[in-house]
Amino acid sequence: MSTSSKPWGGRFAEPTSKIVERYTGSVRYDKALYAQDIAGSKAHARMLSRQGIIGQEDANKIVAGLDLVLGEIHAGTFQWKESLEDVHMNIEARLTELIGEPGKKLHTGRSRNDQVCLDFRLFVSARLEVWSELLAALVKVLAGRAGEHAETLLPGTTHLQPAQPVSLGHHLLAYAWMFRRDHERCRDALKRAAVSPLGAAALAGTTFPLDPASVAEELQLNGTFRNSLDAVSDRDFALEALFVGTTVMMHLSRLCEELILWANPNFGYVALPDAYATGSSIMPQKKNPDVAELMRGKTGRVYGALFTLMTIMKGLPLAYNRDMQEDKEPFFDADRTVSDSLAIMAEMMQAMGFRPEKMRQALKLGFLNATELADYLAARGVPFREAHHVAGSAVALAEKSGRGLEDLSLEELRGLCDKIGPDVAEVLQYETAVKRRDTPGGTAPERVEEQIAALEKWLLELEKGA
Amino acid sequence: MSTSSKPWGGRFAEPTSKIVERYTGSVRYDKALYAQDIAGSKAHARMLSRQGIIGQEDANKIVAGLDLVLGEIHAGTFQWKESLEDVHMNIEARLTELIGEPGKKLHTGRSRNDQVCLDFRLFVSARLEVWSELLAALVKVLAGRAGEHAETLLPGTTHLQPAQPVSLGHHLLAYAWMFRRDHERCRDALKRAAVSPLGAAALAGTTFPLDPASVAEELQLNGTFRNSLDAVSDRDFALEALFVGTTVMMHLSRLCEELILWANPNFGYVALPDAYATGSSIMPQKKNPDVAELMRGKTGRVYGALFTLMTIMKGLPLAYNRDMQEDKEPFFDADRTVSDSLAIMAEMMQAMGFRPEKMRQALKLGFLNATELADYLAARGVPFREAHHVAGSAVALAEKSGRGLEDLSLEELRGLCDKIGPDVAEVLQYETAVKRRDTPGGTAPERVEEQIAALEKWLLELEKGA
Amino acid sequence: MSTSSKPWGGRFAEPTSKIVERYTGSVRYDKALYAQDIAGSKAHARMLSRQGIIGQEDANKIVAGLDLVLGEIHAGTFQWKESLEDVHMNIEARLTELIGEPGKKLHTGRSRNDQVCLDFRLFVSARLEVWSELLAALVKVLAGRAGEHAETLLPGTTHLQPAQPVSLGHHLLAYAWMFRRDHERCRDALKRAAVSPLGAAALAGTTFPLDPASVAEELQLNGTFRNSLDAVSDRDFALEALFVGTTVMMHLSRLCEELILWANPNFGYVALPDAYATGSSIMPQKKNPDVAELMRGKTGRVYGALFTLMTIMKGLPLAYNRDMQEDKEPFFDADRTVSDSLAIMAEMMQAMGFRPEKMRQALKLGFLNATELADYLAARGVPFREAHHVAGSAVALAEKSGRGLEDLSLEELRGLCDKIGPDVAEVLQYETAVKRRDTPGGTAPERVEEQIAALEKWLLELEKGA
Amino acid sequence: MSTSSKPWGGRFAEPTSKIVERYTGSVRYDKALYAQDIAGSKAHARMLSRQGIIGQEDANKIVAGLDLVLGEIHAGTFQWKESLEDVHMNIEARLTELIGEPGKKLHTGRSRNDQVCLDFRLFVSARLEVWSELLAALVKVLAGRAGEHAETLLPGTTHLQPAQPVSLGHHLLAYAWMFRRDHERCRDALKRAAVSPLGAAALAGTTFPLDPASVAEELQLNGTFRNSLDAVSDRDFALEALFVGTTVMMHLSRLCEELILWANPNFGYVALPDAYATGSSIMPQKKNPDVAELMRGKTGRVYGALFTLMTIMKGLPLAYNRDMQEDKEPFFDADRTVSDSLAIMAEMMQAMGFRPEKMRQALKLGFLNATELADYLAARGVPFREAHHVAGSAVALAEKSGRGLEDLSLEELRGLCDKIGPDVAEVLQYETAVKRRDTPGGTAPERVEEQIAALEKWLLELEKGA
Repeated sequence: MSTSSKPWGGRFAEPTSKIVERYTGSVRYDKALYAQDIAGSKAHARMLSRQGIIGQEDANKIVAGLDLVLGEIHAGTFQWKESLEDVHMNIEARLTELIGEPGKKLHTGRSRNDQVCLDFRLFVSARLEVWSELLAALVKVLAGRAGEHAETLLPGTTHLQPAQPVSLGHHLLAYAWMFRRDHERCRDALKRAAVSPLGAAALAGTTFPLDPASVAEELQLNGTFRNSLDAVSDRDFALEALFVGTTVMMHLSRLCEELILWANPNFGYVALPDAYATGSSIMPQKKNPDVAELMRGKTGRVYGALFTLMTIMKGLPLAYNRDMQEDKEPFFDADRTVSDSLAIMAEMMQAMGFRPEKMRQALKLGFLNATELADYLAARGVPFREAHHVAGSAVALAEKSGRGLEDLSLEELRGLCDKIGPDVAEVLQYETAVKRRDTPGGTAPERVEEQIAALEKWLLELEKGA
Repeated sequence: MSTSSKPWGGRFAEPTSKIVERYTGSVRYDKALYAQDIAGSKAHARMLSRQGIIGQEDANKIVAGLDLVLGEIHAGTFQWKESLEDVHMNIEARLTELIGEPGKKLHTGRSRNDQVCLDFRLFVSARLEVWSELLAALVKVLAGRAGEHAETLLPGTTHLQPAQPVSLGHHLLAYAWMFRRDHERCRDALKRAAVSPLGAAALAGTTFPLDPASVAEELQLNGTFRNSLDAVSDRDFALEALFVGTTVMMHLSRLCEELILWANPNFGYVALPDAYATGSSIMPQKKNPDVAELMRGKTGRVYGALFTLMTIMKGLPLAYNRDMQEDKEPFFDADRTVSDSLAIMAEMMQAMGFRPEKMRQALKLGFLNATELADYLAARGVPFREAHHVAGSAVALAEKSGRGLEDLSLEELRGLCDKIGPDVAEVLQYETAVKRRDTPGGTAPERVEEQIAALEKWLLELEKGA
Repeated sequence: MSTSSKPWGGRFAEPTSKIVERYTGSVRYDKALYAQDIAGSKAHARMLSRQGIIGQEDANKIVAGLDLVLGEIHAGTFQWKESLEDVHMNIEARLTELIGEPGKKLHTGRSRNDQVCLDFRLFVSARLEVWSELLAALVKVLAGRAGEHAETLLPGTTHLQPAQPVSLGHHLLAYAWMFRRDHERCRDALKRAAVSPLGAAALAGTTFPLDPASVAEELQLNGTFRNSLDAVSDRDFALEALFVGTTVMMHLSRLCEELILWANPNFGYVALPDAYATGSSIMPQKKNPDVAELMRGKTGRVYGALFTLMTIMKGLPLAYNRDMQEDKEPFFDADRTVSDSLAIMAEMMQAMGFRPEKMRQALKLGFLNATELADYLAARGVPFREAHHVAGSAVALAEKSGRGLEDLSLEELRGLCDKIGPDVAEVLQYETAVKRRDTPGGTAPERVEEQIAALEKWLLELEKGA
Repeated sequence: MSTSSKPWGGRFAEPTSKIVERYTGSVRYDKALYAQDIAGSKAHARMLSRQGIIGQEDANKIVAGLDLVLGEIHAGTFQWKESLEDVHMNIEARLTELIGEPGKKLHTGRSRNDQVCLDFRLFVSARLEVWSELLAALVKVLAGRAGEHAETLLPGTTHLQPAQPVSLGHHLLAYAWMFRRDHERCRDALKRAAVSPLGAAALAGTTFPLDPASVAEELQLNGTFRNSLDAVSDRDFALEALFVGTTVMMHLSRLCEELILWANPNFGYVALPDAYATGSSIMPQKKNPDVAELMRGKTGRVYGALFTLMTIMKGLPLAYNRDMQEDKEPFFDADRTVSDSLAIMAEMMQAMGFRPEKMRQALKLGFLNATELADYLAARGVPFREAHHVAGSAVALAEKSGRGLEDLSLEELRGLCDKIGPDVAEVLQYETAVKRRDTPGGTAPERVEEQIAALEKWLLELEKGA
């Protein structure tokens, strides 16, 4: 674009240098906002006409013209021009080419400052809706798999040390509850994102008798801005969405870490579905959990995106500053990561092969019934400190001979403490340990079923609500 | 603490090295949780007794003993011991010293994993309440000052370039709305923070017939955990509170930036209250906006705190890992910064001296009525492009002679465009420009009053709700 | 790529899902490494032949074939295939198409793990060289402009309050020294980046009698890896380059902040060159420092890139993990930002218009000679505390009447303190204040010239060295 | 401190509010700089005397007085006063109490701006020296343990999947090389940190004929500032040290991750020394790697510290701004973490118990000789693709019966491919696989010894240099 053709070209003599055009241009990425830009412009044009600011006929032409532009973009025939800087100028210029004079009236009572903010809010809101759906879908998969494995046992760990046996279903549901919280955060963020800034104009409002509320309504937003300066300089909605994205990825990274551990043959708890693993061209025995690793790694880029925007916004005076143009790429990148990761994790967990027999070996190897033995003795009046000591000695004895506690003979056990009776056998069964932990939220299978029911009820309500 | 006196000392031979004790100990900072720890323990003891797990008399002794401990801490006579590692062990050990055997029953059906999480959730929730109050107080101050200055005008800027005149009240209210959003985020975070994890025990729930819901109720929490593994490994509530803290500080940093600019004599819009400024021991003319600078700088440490915890949580397998002990210091530090900053900003803004005459000079210097001139011409049928050009020429003419547009004679103006008539004088008044921007959320004084009324209504409802 | 055509496809039954292929593929961005990949492969092939591992003729065919591939890429005729995952597989597959069997021998004694690391190290090293040149070029511009303005005075500020007059040249040179430090850090980072990992193979070294040193030499690298596990799992070089990038951007952001302030009419110290500013389509009086704002904003994305990679690398077990594939995009993005920003800043500073008259007005407005008055009195035996007080009173007196200290009459001054004599006039000249600060590194014009000479000498040595 | 007793109190009427005093004061943490402050002041006083700016006798009194102050601090009798804001004012005030008038001359030609920067640079430099020593000590321990285990084998992993057998010594040395790089970065950072800013005064240099170079020399620094504005506004040295700290912690976090994995009974490669582990009061079988977990977690706070300071410095105009007071706490906190972590890791690795028999079991379980089988076949003319397939089939066969490849009979193997001969037994030995990887930097025991020799030579040179 030559300087003279820029709307503000009058006072400027030198041509904008080429490298600067690339540096400052945004059309290469903000064209992703085309649908929002067109929807916003159509609503704006209709409102201008309703308010008598432009004629009905002009408004009709603008709306029809914008639909033509939309069609061209969908058909791939639209010519994006870097020289036109951004998505807004590209669409407006093409509109004017198509419909002539009325096209020039579209920008009445509007500034790029409130326009870009509207488009971005519409986009972020739409993505928060998509994230919500993907989160619900993942919860559904986890609840489903948990239902299959309410009675499958594996070592629950703290400090990555085997601690107490837990239900695999219970373990999977721990993640389901995390993602449900993420869903809640999406909805909370959405309340604040889905607000229309249109009418704030450049920074101070406008002299045209606009009706911002009707535009918000047409765009199915929750309401309108309250202060024009705030409207054009606020990017809280993007920060908040990015924060929701970081907690989603953090939760996914924890699940990925466990899948990676579990795929290691020393654990062997899972058989990775082929579609989510790769082999080695050199090492024939390998099956690498690449997808889980990449997802764990991609957590970093969403963290980075949040920090990018936090850094940008710090200390910016009111109102709009060009720094804020840098708000979109971090969100676009984070959105791609969050959306793909959620979709892939749901598919991968659906396809995941679990190996209960390996989990059971680990229960034995980790002496996951030692707590039960100590509790058993305590219940028989042995002071807990001593009970703990006896159980520790039993562990040492079994370890020496490569057995589990349940493999020790009654004599061996009574050699350590004569309070032990034949009823200890029942106690040392891992199933018993799990069943006994049946307080609300505990790992007992009935509690697992309870959680599944609660989640299914929630999912049903979501569907109804949608 | 010698190894042998540690409850798990049995299998360990070597003494814990000194440096490690310092590295792993937390009592030096987690003693801040003493009130929460005692409140949680009292509720736990009462529930144990209600459920028949311990006797009523024991529970009474525990509760009374804990009150004694609380008294000692408040009196400053409590002996904190680093060797007892953390706040929980310190309090429990002292309780047992005071009341003997019953003290040992307190920990029944509880683990440090769910205990620490309860204490921390109670603390974070309490601080979110405090932040809410501080935010409301700051909004109140801003609304109050805005009321005084609804008709005071200053240059509104975009790109830090004077753009259009705005009401100082409108400008202050932009921040009020930001802090109101922060308040909303506090409340949303609180919903998820104020949930009891007690009953999750180490990771799997417990075999004692606990009643977690009644504990939550006694502690005035919203509900209880749904999954024991999630309960002990979740730190979302701390992350979310830290995120709220980062947006608070980001908003404060923007206001600080503006105060710092406005205190510079080239702006001169504010006269800093003495209590929030310092002089120079060398340079007699200086009055430094130290408090605003420090607050802007302290934004960094809250950002850092969020990233600290995000880094810690990434990729951690279930359930509790010791890494998570590092969750508290970042929050404590961020809380101090957020709370102090909000309190100080409210005081400072209350005391802030504004200089309307300096703002008015800047209106002239920045040709803040140039847009009005262009609009005036456009309304008289001059194509906007040409109107824009004429206004630009008028700016150039006035600038050359060090005047404002309103100081140009009608002849001078008509020399640029003969469509200009004597009614231009009214148009070039800054007040006119502001009054005309009277769409909802605009800068017109009546719209400023409207915003103030809305905020006052909200503050009143908050007070009633409290 | 169908599963069966993947080299490790044997044990896998299911087709890789489409979304996963996109998620895991890297060719869309890592094709940026094509030149490095080809250079590395040529060096590897020659070494294999020198060591007798493959025949001389095969090596010749490989090298010639790789040159053909390079030609195709440069000509734009190369077909990048997403199904071939990454740049390495794309190039190798095409090579084999072109030259047949010998192409398959290229990968002998090599793994993608050491190959990708070599390519990335070559790329990072090349960019550090480019950054070094851009930094030197920017230092040159700043030194040049400083030379023009050694005697131009402006208010030096602390706390953004006018403090003491300084030479504009001195101010510009402060940045020159920052960028020179960045240059030094580039060179230090380069020492560690320019090291060859080739020969580490997958993780353990290889059974082929490779000669890693000769490959490093051919590629003009500083040396070779010392430990194969470290070689494939180390990304310090990328982190270090990103850190250098963050300090570069931080320095640029400070300069941008000042340019933005100075472009505000209340300062008016600079007239932005048209090519680096934009106007407003609505507000005719505006000239926005968009480029400086964007650059300040882009600082955030380089900060984010560093944090992304730091997050990725934390807690990764040895050796290669797929998480590490995420190392390249943050660097590519940061590199683009750093390189463009440095180039643009050099051009913009070269073209920057300074307004000494506005700076002089600010000297007066800020009472930048108040310190001199206090010093003058102290030199005449007035206790400094009192001298400071008198100078403060003089400021108050002048401020009231809109004058500078130098505009007060001798009588007025003597009314405040009778130790003041006619020689105070000389003292109150701003030039005097600047000239007197002539200790090493001070703002006196001769010290400015000294700095320029030192920087020019350094630049000359750099050129000779190159 | 009442306002009137502040050196700049003259123009100020209101008392500084209490909360602000706490907010702005720094003595509670910056007193850590006392030794540096005193050393810097002594050097400054001697220089003032050498330059004839103050008398020799005054200088003597100042130096002697400062030594008294130092003695009081060491004796714990020094009274730190919050009202005196910072370490500098506290020491100077006490000095003047002790020696009277001469004490007031100490600050001649100096400002708090250059003084605080000198103190902080001295502190950071001293800590970089300490870090260097701790890094070298850790390298020494790792090299020592590697020497014991050059021939101990464990599964080398990529993607956390067993890949090829490696020497435990080789694995430990991978970390040694990382820490050696960190050492190198410490030294590079030190070059730039150990530079004296004294003489820059507030921002512009000073009118006193100082000799900055002689102060730098007395303090054993590398040189002096080149530009006074840069000198007081530069915090690159702290950022760079923090960055070095983040790479140190990142490397430690990777080692910790592996120790945590290895301590899990499914791996069982290490027996944690008792001093670096804790047990469970509930679960008798547990031995938790608490120290390694905490260290991994503490990585987050060092990352956070770097980002804190990066955020603070972004976009700050020249010269000193009060935001920069926030530079010290992040460094102090990070220093404590880095120093303690390095010391503890060296001790812990020295005491670490390795379990070669568990490693060997894992070699078998992971089929770590599968690559060797494929190579064996390839060497016998079987196309690699087919060789890879045969080895994969052998893995499947062995896995089914819970054996390693080396446990398959020759008949079984020949059933898969008749190219296999009795010499395969030698090939399938893990030792053979390791010995064959004997290229420079490979895992063969002789290459491990070579690395140890190189590191020991380096350590020896360091000691000589010191």
